[in-house]
Amino acid sequence: MQFLYKNNSGTSKLSISSAIEKLTPYIEICKGTAQNKDYTKNEASLCLVSDEEMQKQVNALIEKKKINNLKYIITVGIGGSNLGTKAIYDAIYGQVDHLQPERYPKILFLDTTNPEFIFHFAQFFEALSLREDEVIVNIISKSGTNTEPAVNGEIVIEILKKKFNDWKKTCVVTTDKNSPLWNSAVELGIDVLEIPKNVGGRYSVFSAVGLFPLALCGVDIKNLLSSASKMRDLCLQKNEHNNALISAAILYEQLTNKGVVINDNFYFNSELESLGKWYRQLMGESTGKNGIGLTPTISIGSADLHSVVQLYLGGPKNKYTSFVYSSKDREYKLPSTNTLACIKEIEGKSVGDVMDAIRNGTTTAYKKLNLPYTETIFEGISAGEIGAYMQFKMMEIMYLSQLMRVNAFDQPQVELYKIETKKILAKK
Amino acid sequence: MQFLYKNNSGTSKLSISSAIEKLTPYIEICKGTAQNKDYTKNEASLCLVSDEEMQKQVNALIEKKKINNLKYIITVGIGGSNLGTKAIYDAIYGQVDHLQPERYPKILFLDTTNPEFIFHFAQFFEALSLREDEVIVNIISKSGTNTEPAVNGEIVIEILKKKFNDWKKTCVVTTDKNSPLWNSAVELGIDVLEIPKNVGGRYSVFSAVGLFPLALCGVDIKNLLSSASKMRDLCLQKNEHNNALISAAILYEQLTNKGVVINDNFYFNSELESLGKWYRQLMGESTGKNGIGLTPTISIGSADLHSVVQLYLGGPKNKYTSFVYSSKDREYKLPSTNTLACIKEIEGKSVGDVMDAIRNGTTTAYKKLNLPYTETIFEGISAGEIGAYMQFKMMEIMYLSQLMRVNAFDQPQVELYKIETKKILAKK
Repeated sequence: MQFLYKNNSGTSKLSISSAIEKLTPYIEICKGTAQNKDYTKNEASLCLVSDEEMQKQVNALIEKKKINNLKYIITVGIGGSNLGTKAIYDAIYGQVDHLQPERYPKILFLDTTNPEFIFHFAQFFEALSLREDEVIVNIISKSGTNTEPAVNGEIVIEILKKKFNDWKKTCVVTTDKNSPLWNSAVELGIDVLEIPKNVGGRYSVFSAVGLFPLALCGVDIKNLLSSASKMRDLCLQKNEHNNALISAAILYEQLTNKGVVINDNFYFNSELESLGKWYRQLMGESTGKNGIGLTPTISIGSADLHSVVQLYLGGPKNKYTSFVYSSKDREYKLPSTNTLACIKEIEGKSVGDVMDAIRNGTTTAYKKLNLPYTETIFEGISAGEIGAYMQFKMMEIMYLSQLMRVNAFDQPQVELYKIETKKILAKK
Repeated sequence: MQFLYKNNSGTSKLSISSAIEKLTPYIEICKGTAQNKDYTKNEASLCLVSDEEMQKQVNALIEKKKINNLKYIITVGIGGSNLGTKAIYDAIYGQVDHLQPERYPKILFLDTTNPEFIFHFAQFFEALSLREDEVIVNIISKSGTNTEPAVNGEIVIEILKKKFNDWKKTCVVTTDKNSPLWNSAVELGIDVLEIPKNVGGRYSVFSAVGLFPLALCGVDIKNLLSSASKMRDLCLQKNEHNNALISAAILYEQLTNKGVVINDNFYFNSELESLGKWYRQLMGESTGKNGIGLTPTISIGSADLHSVVQLYLGGPKNKYTSFVYSSKDREYKLPSTNTLACIKEIEGKSVGDVMDAIRNGTTTAYKKLNLPYTETIFEGISAGEIGAYMQFKMMEIMYLSQLMRVNAFDQPQVELYKIETKKILAKK
C-alpha cells in the first residue's frame, strides 16, 4: 500500500509537521498500548493484530466446528459488528457472488430488520436442503442488548430449530464477556467468542468479530493480520513514513482552516464500496461530536463520474477527496476489432488501461481545479492490502480525533434515539 | 405517497409562499411543456409519462422479442442510463435476488468497467447454457460516445457472437436518434429505441431507457406511469398540494439562509438504497454548478443508526434530512417466547412494529435536537409509489434549480475529466 500526499494535498509542510509535534505524546501512549498489549486503554484495538492468544481461540473454535463442508455462514450483526466483515468479504468475494453460484462458502449478512428482506431470507433458508455441518450462524453484538441482532437472531434460531435437532452446534455468539447475550448463550450451551471490553465496534474488525466469519469463508487471515501489523508499526513512528499521522494532519488542517466539511472517499475499484461504508462509520461516529466533525461520503469510479462528479468539480469547494485504487488489475482485453466501434481508441486495449485513463483524467481535472486530494494505492485487492488500509485508517482517525480534541471511542448522542425507541417499544 | 413538512421543516410559511410566487412563471412553462408534449424544451422529460406513442414503440419491441422464456436481461449503461432502472429493479426484486435463485427474469447490470467484475461476468455468461430467447442485451447510451458502455458493450457482444448464430436478435440499443451508436446499430440490423434529444440521462427513467428493461423483467409499467402522471399533474399546481414546489422551497431556504450544505436522504426501507443513488445523481448533477449546490448523501435505516447517526445528531448542524419510508410492510412475527431472550420487549412483536419504533425514535431525537427534516411516506414499495416519488423528485429539482438560478439540465464540468481521459487514452 502506498499513500501519496505530497503534490495535491492542499496542506503545507509546516502544518503537517506542527500536527506531528502535537501528536508526539499521544503516539507514545499508542505505542505503549500496543507493546504492552494493554487492553485497559481506549486504544485497546491496537493490540489485536499481534494478539496470538485471541487468534488461537478463534482458530480453536474453527477447528472444533469442522468446516470442510460449509456452504453458508449467516452473520447477524449491525454497525461495527457487521461493516468490517462485509467490507472484506465484498472486496474479495461479495461483488461477484451472484456470478459464482457454485462458489462456497458464502456469507449471508443480516443487519437491519427489514420485514421484506427477512421474509425472503426465511423462505430461502427454510427451503435450503442443508446438513448441520454446512451452515454456521454467527450472532455478533458487542453489548448484547442491541435490538436488531436480537430480532434477527431469534428469527434465525427459530428456523434452525425446525431444521436441526442439534441446532446449537451450528451457532456461535460473539459478544462482550458476561453481556446478557453471553450469559444466555453459555446457559444454552452455545459456543461464545469474546470481544475485549475496550475494543469498540468500529475498531473490532481484527478481533473475533471479523476474524471468525472471514476465516470460515476462506479469507487469508494470516496475511490480513501480518499486513495490518506491519502497518500498525509504521503508524506508530514519529516521521514521514507514518501515513496515519500525515493523513490526520491533512484532514485536520482542511477541516479547521480550509472550509472543508466533507471527506469524499473515492474508490476506483467498485468492489471496495463496502470498505467505504466501514470507513464512513469509523470517521462519522468517532469525530462527529461537540458540534464538529467531517461528513464522510463514498464515491465509486467510474460510475460516479456520471453522477455526482459535476457537483464535485463545479459545486462548492467544501470537500477533501481521498482517492483509493489498485495499481494491479486483472488483465482483460477488448477485441482488436470492435463491432459497434463507436470509440476507436478502445480497440485492443485492456480494460485496466481504460480504467487507468479514466482515473488519471479525473485526478488531472481535480489538480487543474485545485481541488485537494490524496491517493491511497493498493497493490491488488487482497486481504493483506485491505488489512493494511483498515489499520491505517483506524489510526488516522485516532490521531485526527486527538487533534480535534474529541473522544474517538464514544458515541454519546446515539443514546438519544435509543431511549426514544425503547419508550415507544415498551408502549406497544 | 404522502409528503409531510409542516412540523419540522425548519422553514417558515412565509419563505415557502415567497418561493411559490417566484416559481409561478416557471410552473406555467412546465405546464405548457407537459400539455403540448413539447419535446423542444429543456423540461421535455415532463412529456414522457403521457407519451403514448413512445410507450407503444417500447411495447411493440417487447412484443417482437417474444420474451416468455426470458431468464436474463443484461443492461449496459452508466449514470442516467443505469441508475433509474436499477433503483426500481432493486426496490422490487434486486435486494433479494440472491435469495430467489429460481426467480426469472433477472437483470444483470454492467455500469463501470471494473476488470475483475468483467472477468467474472464473462466467465458466468459464457458458461450459462441459454437459448436465444432466454437473454436480451440492452445497450443504453444517450450520446452513444461514452467510454464505459462502449467497452462493456463490445465485451458482451463478443460473448454473444460465440453463443448464438443470430446474436443480433438478442440485442437492443437505446440511444439518441442518429448518434454514432444508433447508426452502427441500424447498419448492423440491431433493433433501436430512441431517447428524445432534450431528455437528459438523469431525467430519462420514464423513457425507453427505463421502460424497456423494466417491462421485460415484469415491473408493472402501467402502474409506474399512471402514478407518475398523477404526481406530475399535482406538481404542476400552484398551491400547497404541490409537493415538488414545497420541497424545493424548503431546500432553497435551508441552503441559502440556514447554513445547510448536505441533503441527507434517509431511507428506512433498505431496498430503496439504489433509489437514493438515482436521486443523488439527480440533485448533484443538476444543482452542483457555479460554485454552489447541495451535496446529497444516502443513509439507510436502521443500519446507519449504528454508523453515521452519531455525526448527524452530535456533529455540525449543516444537514437537511429527507426521511423516506413505507407505512405498509409485510407482516412477519417474532416468536412469542424467545430463545436468547436478551430483549423482553420484542417478544411476539411484528418486525414492522419494531422498525416503526426505531424510526419514530429517530425522528423524535431529530425533533428534540431541532434538526430540520421532512418525511415522504410510501404506501408500500410498489412500482406506482416509486414512480410517483421519482416524478416528484425530478420536478423538485427543476424547481430548486430555478430558485438557485442554475441550469438543471447541463453538466458542463464533466467535460473536464473527459477531455483529460481522451488525451491519455489516445497516447496509450
